[in-house]
Amino acid sequence: MPTSSPATAASSLPAIAQQTRDSARNLATQPTAVRDQALESIAQALEAASADILAANQADCEAATAAGLSAALFARLKLDETKLKGAIAGIRDVARLPDPIGAVQLHRELDQGLVLTRLACPLGVVGVIFEARPDAVMQIASLAIKSGNGVILKGGQEAVRSCEALVAAIHRGLAQTDIAPTVVQLLTTREETLALLKLDQYVDLIIPRGSNSFVRFVQDNTRIPVLGHAEGICHLYVDKAADVQKAIAIAVDAKTQYPAACNAIETLLVHQAIASEFLLEAVVALQLRNVELRGDDRTLDILNITTATEADWSTEYSDLILAIKIVNTLDEAIAHINTYGSRHTEAIATENAETAATFMAQVDAAGVFHNCSTRFADGFRYGFGAEVGISTQKMPPRGPVGLDGLVTYKYQLVGNGQIVATYAGTNAKPFTHRDL
Amino acid sequence: MPTSSPATAASSLPAIAQQTRDSARNLATQPTAVRDQALESIAQALEAASADILAANQADCEAATAAGLSAALFARLKLDETKLKGAIAGIRDVARLPDPIGAVQLHRELDQGLVLTRLACPLGVVGVIFEARPDAVMQIASLAIKSGNGVILKGGQEAVRSCEALVAAIHRGLAQTDIAPTVVQLLTTREETLALLKLDQYVDLIIPRGSNSFVRFVQDNTRIPVLGHAEGICHLYVDKAADVQKAIAIAVDAKTQYPAACNAIETLLVHQAIASEFLLEAVVALQLRNVELRGDDRTLDILNITTATEADWSTEYSDLILAIKIVNTLDEAIAHINTYGSRHTEAIATENAETAATFMAQVDAAGVFHNCSTRFADGFRYGFGAEVGISTQKMPPRGPVGLDGLVTYKYQLVGNGQIVATYAGTNAKPFTHRDL
Repeated sequence: MPTSSPATAASSLPAIAQQTRDSARNLATQPTAVRDQALESIAQALEAASADILAANQADCEAATAAGLSAALFARLKLDETKLKGAIAGIRDVARLPDPIGAVQLHRELDQGLVLTRLACPLGVVGVIFEARPDAVMQIASLAIKSGNGVILKGGQEAVRSCEALVAAIHRGLAQTDIAPTVVQLLTTREETLALLKLDQYVDLIIPRGSNSFVRFVQDNTRIPVLGHAEGICHLYVDKAADVQKAIAIAVDAKTQYPAACNAIETLLVHQAIASEFLLEAVVALQLRNVELRGDDRTLDILNITTATEADWSTEYSDLILAIKIVNTLDEAIAHINTYGSRHTEAIATENAETAATFMAQVDAAGVFHNCSTRFADGFRYGFGAEVGISTQKMPPRGPVGLDGLVTYKYQLVGNGQIVATYAGTNAKPFTHRDL
Repeated sequence: MPTSSPATAASSLPAIAQQTRDSARNLATQPTAVRDQALESIAQALEAASADILAANQADCEAATAAGLSAALFARLKLDETKLKGAIAGIRDVARLPDPIGAVQLHRELDQGLVLTRLACPLGVVGVIFEARPDAVMQIASLAIKSGNGVILKGGQEAVRSCEALVAAIHRGLAQTDIAPTVVQLLTTREETLALLKLDQYVDLIIPRGSNSFVRFVQDNTRIPVLGHAEGICHLYVDKAADVQKAIAIAVDAKTQYPAACNAIETLLVHQAIASEFLLEAVVALQLRNVELRGDDRTLDILNITTATEADWSTEYSDLILAIKIVNTLDEAIAHINTYGSRHTEAIATENAETAATFMAQVDAAGVFHNCSTRFADGFRYGFGAEVGISTQKMPPRGPVGLDGLVTYKYQLVGNGQIVATYAGTNAKPFTHRDL
């Protein structure tokens, strides 16, 4: 297991990456059944190694306790039998998902006997950098194998024993199959993270899973495409034509159902015509859930809460705090969102279909929602089966990304000796461009 | 026309970009007919301004002559009546292309009354940096407007008068429509190029059109996604089962039909079993077209040509030079391509279908071709109608990119008050996830 040994120096990383790339190229040509069978083999190897894995995790947890790790991080680090069984079941779920590779996206005759096909194919090698939670190893490795990609994992230092035990089991599982264990690699040192970001020759996509500042750091230090989001500043706009009860239920859910999630709302925008009616009732529901409210001047005329400052409009609280601003018009709400939002998910509560349509057309975000909670922005809820991340970038893949975020495509052109000179110049033969 | 004035300071660029963004948001909501009509209005304004445009270009050409501009650059700079008419006809062609925005890519019921739709929508603002050729202004502006995007153009200094006259006419054309002229902006100074690359708040995609080193410079100096290719190192592999005549015709076309193109081949790989037969005949055809040949040691045993060095395998000649290497196996050819190729377009000549299939599956490139010239890798030849560029990146869009490279998508979710709490926890309501 040279790749999971602490002795692995960053200087050998290109060699590891090249090996992963080579193994991944072979994996990419394996049929669906072989890749799915490999996932089953991994699941069985993890079951067989459960005791070792839990013992390794126990050692990580003891070290974490000694080091005074925060309760939140500790909760993510801790792996018990139930969590491990759940993660192994998740691997079998991934095996059952439709194969993301091989789909024909375009099939076109350019001329008689010259046929173009666009085929979904794996990206190659994906680098994933994650924090404490060791269960991410199983989830990511299974998504990578399903989609025909190699993966270089970099786990958090606090989870090193757990990650090594997990990857050792995954390697044992793969050793029973036609897929080289080296498609899954584990890095364990902080220096390797930086080195990984420089490997644009070998790594096709980086998925950072961590804090906003970490994602931003990754984006600023690599030429490799990054799938992720640096911020989730989402809004709910309560229109003058909103159903107040619906709007309150949505506001409460979007703020409190899981406040640390990136798709939770940070700011409530309220149309002035409905402000008193809505806010006086909403404040009770929100404060009942211990939400701290901060308002602009006009909100303070209605509610006795803290003053919101300019900084509040661009802050992702990730906590039970909600900023409130009263707007005069739909346009003002849209402008506020397009200025301060992070293009993640934005919602409107209104019974007016035309107003909703304008909002959904003009708001610039991966998700624009009407009369439902922003918390629905999630790969599982969208029915993607598995989520590799949520992207707030404009270029696809955007929003919640399923397995299709781990594939690209290639054009195959098959002829019988055709040359371009035939189709160029004064006597150029025309193309037929007929979709098949 | 503040944006095309030389007085525009780089410091005001964020303001210009913000203005473009605002105008583009309005453009994005305009129906197909309005955008197509705007293109017709631009075409008419350009026709009306033809004399001014040609005079401005004449002044640019005189300055270029005085400055000793290379003949190649001068040819690209020079705009005559035929070229201008052709470019204006191109704008009307773009108007006739299918609308790339508004397409429904996914339509799914998550639960009764909770419906998810994925819709193609514009990116926002595209920054395009190009060299001498002023006709690019017309092509890019029309593609941007068709796809609902704002565009910030940065033309070469040598074409400044031409670009200003063209953009002035485009603005006059747009002034007759519901689309704000500020969706098309022109920058003219070198300082503004660097400043543009820093505007990741406002610009969603950069398309550099220039030398490989320029594209690389852009990639290294921006956080904005870059659509382009730094290199085009393409190969033709002549398999042992190749039809020699077909292989020669393809090699000649792929090298000589337009040697400066990124999809021209730089290296010929030849299976040892066919090397003598193929090379002895191919050398005649290639040298007849003035191709300079460089070979590895084994090729030199057959042909009396220059020695190829290691550097040749990774050089894009963009000229009538071709490196030749003899390989023992298909695997060796694939490994060579995957090591030295730039993932642009790779071809095999063989009559063996199985060999072709292996090559096409295992070669890692945007285009993998069988028995046809690499020169077919082109948006127009693929039937995309217009090409915004060719991408050698792994993430989509990859290969020749049409109008669909200028669009992204957004998820619209429409409900009737649904909240996530209903679908979470022990009594979670299941999703239906039914495609509509």
